[in-house]
Amino acid sequence: MLNGTRDTIFIGKKPLMTYVTSAIIQLSTMPVVTLKARGQSIAMAVDVAQVIQRKTNAFEIGKIKIDYESLESTDGKTRNVSTIEIPMKRTW
Amino acid sequence: MLNGTRDTIFIGKKPLMTYVTSAIIQLSTMPVVTLKARGQSIAMAVDVAQVIQRKTNAFEIGKIKIDYESLESTDGKTRNVSTIEIPMKRTW
Repeated sequence: MLNGTRDTIFIGKKPLMTYVTSAIIQLSTMPVVTLKARGQSIAMAVDVAQVIQRKTNAFEIGKIKIDYESLESTDGKTRNVSTIEIPMKRTW
Repeated sequence: MLNGTRDTIFIGKKPLMTYVTSAIIQLSTMPVVTLKARGQSIAMAVDVAQVIQRKTNAFEIGKIKIDYESLESTDGKTRNVSTIEIPMKRTW
């Protein structure tokens, strides 16, 4: 999160407000920041988007994309994991 | 799920394939079926949509909406829970 030019925030296991803060900071210098998550973190990505929108009124949610990634698990089998991308846009 | 005219499927705690099967059955008689989920079930709703799309090629994912609901918890406080709506459309 130290890189000031990133337009993507990967949602993982950190507390919700960590991602909310990161996204709002990024959005102060960029018009669009995309929240990305996979698996169980998808629910938190939606939470992050909702909190940003509710708290500020300065951002809107763009076209949400869902997809999947094929990952190889430790037993050598391929598993499909769902992913989500939520673009957050400045409204000003 | 017994009602043949429902165009919404609420994703909860049942196994994934229960919802996949329900959705495909509904889509045989309706052009659009919407998957709805809230909280942690949001991740499963995305899984259901992905499995339907991958298995069949007969359906596409429409415009995804995210929102939140205010629920009163047992201690009387109001909590916001994120929700998702994923419309699945027939491509034929």
